[in-house]
Amino acid sequence: MHKKLHGKISVVSKKPIKTLDDLSILYTPGVGAASSYLAVHKSELRRMTIKNNTVAVVSDGSAVLGLGNIGAAAAIPVMEGKCVLFKEFAGIDAFPIVLDTQNPDEIVETIKNIAPVFGGINLEDISAPRCFEIEERLQNLLDIPLMHDDQHGTAIVVIAGLINAFKVADKRISESKIVIVGAGAAGNAVAKLLHQIGAGDIIVTDSKGIIDRDRKNLDPYKKHLAEITNRKNLCGNILAASEGADAIIGLSKPGSINASHIKSMAEKPIVFALANPVPEILPQTAKKAGAYIVATGRSDFPNQINNVLGFPGIFRGALDHKVKKITPEIKLAAAKKLASLVKNPSPTNIIPSVLDRRVAKAVASVVR
Amino acid sequence: MHKKLHGKISVVSKKPIKTLDDLSILYTPGVGAASSYLAVHKSELRRMTIKNNTVAVVSDGSAVLGLGNIGAAAAIPVMEGKCVLFKEFAGIDAFPIVLDTQNPDEIVETIKNIAPVFGGINLEDISAPRCFEIEERLQNLLDIPLMHDDQHGTAIVVIAGLINAFKVADKRISESKIVIVGAGAAGNAVAKLLHQIGAGDIIVTDSKGIIDRDRKNLDPYKKHLAEITNRKNLCGNILAASEGADAIIGLSKPGSINASHIKSMAEKPIVFALANPVPEILPQTAKKAGAYIVATGRSDFPNQINNVLGFPGIFRGALDHKVKKITPEIKLAAAKKLASLVKNPSPTNIIPSVLDRRVAKAVASVVR
Repeated sequence: MHKKLHGKISVVSKKPIKTLDDLSILYTPGVGAASSYLAVHKSELRRMTIKNNTVAVVSDGSAVLGLGNIGAAAAIPVMEGKCVLFKEFAGIDAFPIVLDTQNPDEIVETIKNIAPVFGGINLEDISAPRCFEIEERLQNLLDIPLMHDDQHGTAIVVIAGLINAFKVADKRISESKIVIVGAGAAGNAVAKLLHQIGAGDIIVTDSKGIIDRDRKNLDPYKKHLAEITNRKNLCGNILAASEGADAIIGLSKPGSINASHIKSMAEKPIVFALANPVPEILPQTAKKAGAYIVATGRSDFPNQINNVLGFPGIFRGALDHKVKKITPEIKLAAAKKLASLVKNPSPTNIIPSVLDRRVAKAVASVVR
Repeated sequence: MHKKLHGKISVVSKKPIKTLDDLSILYTPGVGAASSYLAVHKSELRRMTIKNNTVAVVSDGSAVLGLGNIGAAAAIPVMEGKCVLFKEFAGIDAFPIVLDTQNPDEIVETIKNIAPVFGGINLEDISAPRCFEIEERLQNLLDIPLMHDDQHGTAIVVIAGLINAFKVADKRISESKIVIVGAGAAGNAVAKLLHQIGAGDIIVTDSKGIIDRDRKNLDPYKKHLAEITNRKNLCGNILAASEGADAIIGLSKPGSINASHIKSMAEKPIVFALANPVPEILPQTAKKAGAYIVATGRSDFPNQINNVLGFPGIFRGALDHKVKKITPEIKLAAAKKLASLVKNPSPTNIIPSVLDRRVAKAVASVVR
C-alpha cells in the first residue's frame, strides 16, 4: 500500500484557481492586503491563516515504533500516518517534519524556528532521555501547545484504561500498587500521571531493575522518578516489584513480563502489555497465569490501548481554545473523560474502540 | 476572502480510515513494515513517501512582496498562496514554512534540518544580499533542488518575455544594450541570466546609480555584477544608463523609471516595469514616451510577467526527473521554452497567459 500511494497525505487548495480574479485574490496583489493587515493586526493570525488548524508532527527518527534509531527518512511513513490520523479523527491539518539532526540543541532551535505557521507541535518517536529535555525547553520557548505523544498521549490512554480496569476489579487506584516495566518516554510519563492521579504506590523498572533512591548514576529524569515513586524504596528485579501488585504495565519489549510475575501479583491482576506489535506477554499466556484483565496495543485482542484515542482530541481542544500549554490537569481530565465513554466496563471492555468517532470530540471538550 | 477561508490550504489523507484494517495498514503495525523497509532500502524513499511530490515554500518574511520586512507570521498568506499555485498549476503538494529567525546561519541550518521530507525547497521573499548567501550555502548542503523564486523564477519569466519582445522589435539580444533598474534579488538574477544568454551589454543600477567597477564598498554580489556587466564601465544615474538602450527592466519601485529615460533609449524601446502592484511607470505613460512594448506584473495590462509561469513547471520537472540542482542551463531552457509557447508574438502578446495550462507541463518537459 505504501508503494502504491507514494505518500499518504496531500496538500490541497481550499479554493481552485479558475480566473484571473481567483489568482488576484489568493495570490498577488490580494494576498498583499492580507499580509499587510497581519503585519499590524497580529492577533488575527489564526483567523486568516492555516495556523488555526495546523499541527507539525516532528521526529528525529531516533526511536521509531519498535524499530529504534532508523533515522529521519525512514521515519517518514510513521509521521505521515500520524498526519492521516490527525485529519481523520480530529479534522486537523497535520504535516510531517523529520529532522536531519539528532542533536537536542539543533532540534530545539529548528522547531522553534519553524513554529510560526503551526498551531501546535506533536513530537514523535524521539528517544529518552533526550525527549524530556527537548520537550521541556520547547515548552518554555513556544507560545503554542506542544506534546511528545509517546509520553503523554500514551499516558492519557493508559490511565483511562486503568481507571476502568480498577473499576471492573472493584479496587481503588489510590490504594493500589502499580508496576511499570520500562522507564523510557512512555514509562516516565505514565508514572508521572499516575502520581498526579494519586496512585497508592508506583514502582518503575528499567533494564537494570527497580528504580530506587539508592541507585547510582541515575539521569535527572530517573532520579525524579525515584523521588515520586517506590514508597518503600524496594530494589531488585521485576519479580521483586510485581509481588502483591494490583497492576503491571509493560512499556518495554516482548518477553519482559512473564507468568511468574503475574502469579506473584495481588488478586485480580491487571496486565497491560503494550509493546507493539509484539506485547511483553501474549494475552492467552497472561490469562493462563491468572490475569483478570489484559490490555495490549493490538487491534486483534480486546482492550486496545492506542494513542489515537488521545492526541487527536487533545490537539483539537488545544487549537479550538487557543491553549498554550498541555498541562498535567488537561491530561488527567482527558484520561477521565476517555474512561467515562465506556458505559459498562468489563474485563474485555475497558477502553473505547479506536474507531469510536465520539472520542476526539469528547476529549477535546475537556481541554478548555 | 482570507478571513473567510481561515487559511488557503488543507492537508488531506489519500485514503480514509474506515476499518481497523485501514488503521493497521496506514498506521501501526503496517507502517512499521514500510519504515523498516526504508531503513534498509534508502533509494525507495520517494516511491513510498510524500517526498516524491512535496516542496517547502520557505520564507523569513524579510522582503515580502512590496511590503518589506514584515516578519514571518505576516508572510504566511503569501506562502500559502504560493502553495495554492504549486498545487493548481503543477499538482505539487507544497507546504509553507515561515522562520522565526532572520539570521542566515540559523536559516541555513533550519532548512537543512527539515529537508528530509521534502523533494524540493522554494525560497521566497528573503531579502538581498542575504538571499544569495543562503541559497548558495544550501545548494552545497542539500541533495534536493532548491530555488529562490524571487531571483530565478523572475529571471526565467523576464528572459522569456525579452526573447519575444526582441523578436517583435526585430532586434537581437546578443547585440543589445539592456538596463536593469534594481540590483536586489530579481535584478541580480536577471542580470546573470542575461549574461548567460549572451546579451550584448547589460547595465545594472541600484539606489546609488550605475554599478560600475570603480564603485567603492560594493558587496561581493554587486562586485560580481560589476564584473559581468557594463562593458564600457559607465557610471552615473539611470538616465546615463538608458541612453541608447534597447530595453529597460524595472525590478525596483514605483516612479523609478520615467518618460525621459524612455525618450533617451534606442528605437522601439522595450520597457518592463515589474514593480507590483504599482509598476515603475504606468503602461500609458510609457507608451506616450515612445515605448514600443510594455510589460508589467499586473493582470489588468497586456504582457503580464508573473513567476507563476516559471516555478510550478521548474519544480514539476525537477521532481519528476529527480534533478538535484536547478542549473543556469535549466533556467535558460525554461525561458526559451516559455517564450516558444507564444506562437505569434506581437507588442501586446509576448508571454503566455498566467492561466495557460500548457505552461507548467511545457516548462517541466525541458528540465530533464
